[in-house]
Amino acid sequence: MRNIKLTIRYDGTNYSGWQSQKNGRAIQDVIEAAIRKITGERSHLAGSGRTDAGVHAMAQVANFKTRSKIPLERIRMALNSILPKDIVIYRVEETHPKFDAQRSAKTKLYRYTIMNSDFLDPFMRRYAAKVFYKIDVGRMRRASKSLAGRHDFKSFQATDGDREKNAVRTIKKIKIEKNGDLVYIDIEANGFLYNMARNIVGTLVEVGRGKYSVGSVKEILGKKDRRYCGPTMPAKGLSMIRVVYK
Amino acid sequence: MRNIKLTIRYDGTNYSGWQSQKNGRAIQDVIEAAIRKITGERSHLAGSGRTDAGVHAMAQVANFKTRSKIPLERIRMALNSILPKDIVIYRVEETHPKFDAQRSAKTKLYRYTIMNSDFLDPFMRRYAAKVFYKIDVGRMRRASKSLAGRHDFKSFQATDGDREKNAVRTIKKIKIEKNGDLVYIDIEANGFLYNMARNIVGTLVEVGRGKYSVGSVKEILGKKDRRYCGPTMPAKGLSMIRVVYK
Repeated sequence: MRNIKLTIRYDGTNYSGWQSQKNGRAIQDVIEAAIRKITGERSHLAGSGRTDAGVHAMAQVANFKTRSKIPLERIRMALNSILPKDIVIYRVEETHPKFDAQRSAKTKLYRYTIMNSDFLDPFMRRYAAKVFYKIDVGRMRRASKSLAGRHDFKSFQATDGDREKNAVRTIKKIKIEKNGDLVYIDIEANGFLYNMARNIVGTLVEVGRGKYSVGSVKEILGKKDRRYCGPTMPAKGLSMIRVVYK
Repeated sequence: MRNIKLTIRYDGTNYSGWQSQKNGRAIQDVIEAAIRKITGERSHLAGSGRTDAGVHAMAQVANFKTRSKIPLERIRMALNSILPKDIVIYRVEETHPKFDAQRSAKTKLYRYTIMNSDFLDPFMRRYAAKVFYKIDVGRMRRASKSLAGRHDFKSFQATDGDREKNAVRTIKKIKIEKNGDLVYIDIEANGFLYNMARNIVGTLVEVGRGKYSVGSVKEILGKKDRRYCGPTMPAKGLSMIRVVYK
């Protein structure tokens, strides 16, 4: 059995997210169907992590096992020929038998893109969220400092959907950059709770526009209660940028 | 009567082009309908030039006359609230009575974006055309030199659609840049014939991949016959970048 690692870029706009679901069209299902067409086998495709409906990926990583002996480059070309144009396989590699896209991952980097203007650039309308209120990036940066490190992020976990009992995660890095109207919030962590990235950004935006104090983020973290954090930002602004492996 | 100048950005993917047509949804019509809603008047919106179906604009310029006294910023906000998300009005200015977005224009700058790879980046799939063959940008640059200046561009004019008898135009500047897989071809001219930009790029691509010689572009220009030039590139790679006024 070969263990095949895929690096995948997708525009999540038209999907119900990465993971198979009863309703909607999942990215995982679409790629699994394409693999089956090529290898003739029904393989399970394990992703490094789920992305929610409407969330994008620059480089999602996933792996599947196969008995097929088709050369790697042929697999890549064949998959891309079958897949819809909003999903592209960038790399196909053979990896060691124990590699698991999710369990072997050390950290994941997500980027949230905000357009701080009154109307969204038409070319960014699927890839950024508009924030109409003027936001102060300096305040957001100062507030974000208390999120770095190992914490219980229960306050930033969605109250609906799949909740995990253990909400302790480590944010390795959180970086906020401004370029014209665009504000990028990069969060690298060893794991993300459901809606965690979007809730963190929603809270930092409240700080940026002066509704919450700079110190409030630390307080919210301490509350361990979702009711204290800011609103969940729209999915379309979020992209999985990179998965780091050991 | 006030003469109002609009600077407009649009994703042309879902439109039949700038200009009103019997079939399809034109950008001009959509904006005229929005203006009518706001001013209550039926105004003609004159664009700096047509863009074909599927062509985009970073800064198309258009003007209309109105008796309405609504403040400019209110017009901008109201238009953007009514318009679909793929059309955004960036600037609204009052200009002198004689200003005409088309006739006052000195030059227009178009950019064509090529992705030179086997599969299109999903995020660029609406804004770039894929060229699978490896293309040599140096060859394209050398060939493009013979296009600069005042020439009869009949060889690069579409044989269908609206043809103009006088095909003499002046290309002020033609610039080709490469950035990773992306190749940008910028053409600034005092006017563009129907399909001229897309036919020029199609011809340069043939040079870049070695099918045409570097010298052939000059020869094709001399033929004054569309049958000699390269294929018309897809509309989606083309964007109107800027209109320069006197």
